[in-house]
Amino acid sequence: MKQLRHWLPILDWGSRYDRATFGADLLAAVIVTIMLIPQSLAYAMLAALPPEAGLYASILPLMAYALFGTSRVLAVGPVAVVSLMTASAVAPVVSAGLADAMTAAMVLALMSGAMLVLMGLLRLGFVANFLSHPVISGFITASGLLIAAGQLGYLLGMGGGGSTLPAVVSRLSEPQGVHPATAGIGVGVLVFLWFARSRLKPLLIRLGLGMTMATVIARAAPVMAIFVTIALSKSFDLGAKGVALVGQVPAGLPVPGLPAADMALIFALAPAAFLISIVGFVESVSVARTLAAKRRERIGPDQELLGLGAANLAAGMSGAFPVTGGFARSVVNFDAGARTPAAGAFTAIGIALAALYLAPLLAALPQATLAATIIVAVLSLVDLPALARVWAWSRHDFAAMLATILMTLGFGVEAGISAGVVLSILLVLWRASHPHSAVVGQVPGTEHYRNISRHQVITTPRVLSLRVDESLWFGNARFLEEKIEALAACSPGLKHIVLMCPAVNDIDASALESLADINRRLMDAGIRFHLSEVKGPVMDRLRRSDFLAGLSGEVFLSQHEAMCRLGEGGDCGPEARKAG
Amino acid sequence: MKQLRHWLPILDWGSRYDRATFGADLLAAVIVTIMLIPQSLAYAMLAALPPEAGLYASILPLMAYALFGTSRVLAVGPVAVVSLMTASAVAPVVSAGLADAMTAAMVLALMSGAMLVLMGLLRLGFVANFLSHPVISGFITASGLLIAAGQLGYLLGMGGGGSTLPAVVSRLSEPQGVHPATAGIGVGVLVFLWFARSRLKPLLIRLGLGMTMATVIARAAPVMAIFVTIALSKSFDLGAKGVALVGQVPAGLPVPGLPAADMALIFALAPAAFLISIVGFVESVSVARTLAAKRRERIGPDQELLGLGAANLAAGMSGAFPVTGGFARSVVNFDAGARTPAAGAFTAIGIALAALYLAPLLAALPQATLAATIIVAVLSLVDLPALARVWAWSRHDFAAMLATILMTLGFGVEAGISAGVVLSILLVLWRASHPHSAVVGQVPGTEHYRNISRHQVITTPRVLSLRVDESLWFGNARFLEEKIEALAACSPGLKHIVLMCPAVNDIDASALESLADINRRLMDAGIRFHLSEVKGPVMDRLRRSDFLAGLSGEVFLSQHEAMCRLGEGGDCGPEARKAG
Repeated sequence: MKQLRHWLPILDWGSRYDRATFGADLLAAVIVTIMLIPQSLAYAMLAALPPEAGLYASILPLMAYALFGTSRVLAVGPVAVVSLMTASAVAPVVSAGLADAMTAAMVLALMSGAMLVLMGLLRLGFVANFLSHPVISGFITASGLLIAAGQLGYLLGMGGGGSTLPAVVSRLSEPQGVHPATAGIGVGVLVFLWFARSRLKPLLIRLGLGMTMATVIARAAPVMAIFVTIALSKSFDLGAKGVALVGQVPAGLPVPGLPAADMALIFALAPAAFLISIVGFVESVSVARTLAAKRRERIGPDQELLGLGAANLAAGMSGAFPVTGGFARSVVNFDAGARTPAAGAFTAIGIALAALYLAPLLAALPQATLAATIIVAVLSLVDLPALARVWAWSRHDFAAMLATILMTLGFGVEAGISAGVVLSILLVLWRASHPHSAVVGQVPGTEHYRNISRHQVITTPRVLSLRVDESLWFGNARFLEEKIEALAACSPGLKHIVLMCPAVNDIDASALESLADINRRLMDAGIRFHLSEVKGPVMDRLRRSDFLAGLSGEVFLSQHEAMCRLGEGGDCGPEARKAG
Repeated sequence: MKQLRHWLPILDWGSRYDRATFGADLLAAVIVTIMLIPQSLAYAMLAALPPEAGLYASILPLMAYALFGTSRVLAVGPVAVVSLMTASAVAPVVSAGLADAMTAAMVLALMSGAMLVLMGLLRLGFVANFLSHPVISGFITASGLLIAAGQLGYLLGMGGGGSTLPAVVSRLSEPQGVHPATAGIGVGVLVFLWFARSRLKPLLIRLGLGMTMATVIARAAPVMAIFVTIALSKSFDLGAKGVALVGQVPAGLPVPGLPAADMALIFALAPAAFLISIVGFVESVSVARTLAAKRRERIGPDQELLGLGAANLAAGMSGAFPVTGGFARSVVNFDAGARTPAAGAFTAIGIALAALYLAPLLAALPQATLAATIIVAVLSLVDLPALARVWAWSRHDFAAMLATILMTLGFGVEAGISAGVVLSILLVLWRASHPHSAVVGQVPGTEHYRNISRHQVITTPRVLSLRVDESLWFGNARFLEEKIEALAACSPGLKHIVLMCPAVNDIDASALESLADINRRLMDAGIRFHLSEVKGPVMDRLRRSDFLAGLSGEVFLSQHEAMCRLGEGGDCGPEARKAG
């Protein structure tokens, strides 16, 4: 039973569900539903899919997450960055004739779901660590810019899309120009939404409305924009005047079913599915963790993989596209008082009602309204000052971040995030290949040994002591070889080299081989190789290898013991002197 | 001038060149030349190229390395593993009709040379650290097995080649069967070479020959095998009896010139060129370093990149294929007394003479003789006991090694080495995401703080101290978030968390962001976040960021100070007690 509760968190919170919790969850669900309707439609447009796919992405996936997820407040559904990644993954597959867009999107969601579930079962969540913070933050900023630029075309009636900044710019500079009626609606909605986002709630509170009411009204602004522009569109027959409309949306619920996929399609979508899984997981966990901490709850990253995986499998089986936990929506859910994942399930019911009864209205909705919704939502993702902060902290991290941003803008989302990951791993290796180390000497009158280039210390020409401040592994094994080779080559009278290992937590097989090589080479050069201050667990493992048998020198418990025993201590304690 | 000497090491050793050095270099060159003639022909066959390409690979590339290389004894030229990688890179390009084999091999050498020079100029030698020892060792073992299996077909007269073990096995099990005359020669040469390698030298010495003479004769065994089998082939007209012969080899020197290449060819060869560069560099530097240490010399890894790069550029411009420093040949060169890179230049002259005057003889040489030469040479590369050694040391390293071997045998050299590199980087991330850390408490009566699960220590429910034993970076930043989240969630009365950082040498932007997130989340949960024992340089950088401004707690010089100042020390010193 405990095992089952672990896999199905709903058994845990469900057994203690009461009326008060129900009320809180329901209120939160109403607010989130109001927010989610326009977003669902907008992100479907961003993903270059029919609008109902967005609504479907907000029904079954939310139910699935409510069953398996650990976060009590994470609001799962379509989000901007993942929708852009979906569009960018689907486009080449469609133009290669491998599948239609909807099939490709469903297969992408299924694959992403399967990968997430697999990672969860195999406890491979650590793979997400590949995405360093500068890379993910640069990626999201660049995606936000790319999305906003791409939607400008829809906003102004020039046609939208484009998966790289040059593509978007070249489309925007095409000669057909701005469509005045569309641009009027688009810019009007944009200004209204911006006002609603930043000014409406304080204004309503000043006008005497209660906090909750003010919140609901402010959150409802995008829905109001939809109704108002639908009304305008119908009154003035804007469709006939050349304003691009959403068009017929079938009323009804998604019919569960699997898309038809062949191996070619699966192979073509695999890299994108992997990137979508990782990006979605990293974003989602970060949001969930931040919100959980506020109530001293915790989320299980491996269980989160299962929750998100189930949500995406549900998306792939119900005519939708990849989903993940959205930041803004989750914060709204939290602020509105959601207490359990049931709030997500209630939201799903709300969206299902919308899909049943609202759909017929949407045909007359101008696309520009959705474009404005998207632009307002994604501009909050853009964090250019982060570039300055990261620059001040570390040039390496800045390089990874800038590369991610430039590659994403110039060559699209997959190139951008791949470049960022590769560059950050390269930089890790670069750092690892320049580990902290110091030649040390004795601080006079003490048993302490310090860096000779920073302290006044005693050294001897016959013994050289090198301290390494990091675990030894293949990233820095060659550095150690080079360093000791250089020290040995520059010190003609040298008889002993002592490697001081107080910070070495681990030695991998490459480093062990390097130590053995160093030992052999020093032996050839008539120099004995010693170790000192080796940590207990490392020493235990060395004893089980044949390294110690071949070692020309000894292993000393302390550096001071090494210097005294090698007969070279500038200032040995009374006991050591006696022994000497 | 000093700068110039740095780039052209020949100016350094050349200025002190004398008659005794000349004598020593010349003797070594004679021995290496005798060894290199059959190897050049054999490795050309292994690379699926005409035999003269092997001779050309041993002329200009050696001259170029003598100018730019830092190792005094490294013998550059065609080697088994790189020849196999060449064959495997060239085959798909040829079958796709992008170029003929010789053009593709020359372009590959040029690209590899250019990459090596670029890495040398940009000091990117650290990229070679990607290749952990288990991966390179597994790769060489698997390549040796693959080469030996592939040559069995030539040895037995069944036709050879095949870039994966399944391909080789299926070829060997084809019904046409063994060709008796070919197999007779092949097996005969194999037994003779094995005998010469392991028994001949001691036998000759026992028979009264001098050491040098015995060495030269033993080393000449492959050349003798060539002459004897050529004589047999001519006497019995073996070619007419179905024994595969080398065929016409044009007499003469390579004519320098660039191959014709288009972008499609360059793109197709780029990954292989990169892998060949890295594998060649890693092998070469390891050999050079081992030999240099014996004379307390040192080699410069970045200059070595230039030397090998120049050698490969020369190969690409003189009708040859990628080269690198060979292990066996370099050891022979060293043992024979080579003192400067001039020995390599003299070897080049020796091979040039062979290309001029020996070539006409080679037409009648049975391919089986070369196959036997290759098999004897590569079986010494196979080190299966290394699997057991690595298994005993570390399961992770064993996994990387086994994956490399299996992927190389099953899917070829490029898949093998890529799988090894990817897996070892994954395992680094896995290790990083499980860093050494411990919740610590006070050892009674002391100012020391130790792991609570290993020592009898004093703790308090209001303060929790966590020590991390590694630098904080994106690989372990999320671990830290999860760990602290878990600790906070399980400790209801907690008011303070102290992160003890005595081993933190570095904090990257991801980890800084994680620390800030941890701080914010703990603040939301009513817990203050403190640091203790932060190293000087790390503290300096933290002061320049805005992290400390937002920190809810304090930074303490020592863990003991932290516990006393937080009013929770089980046993504080007299001063701290007064302050409390």
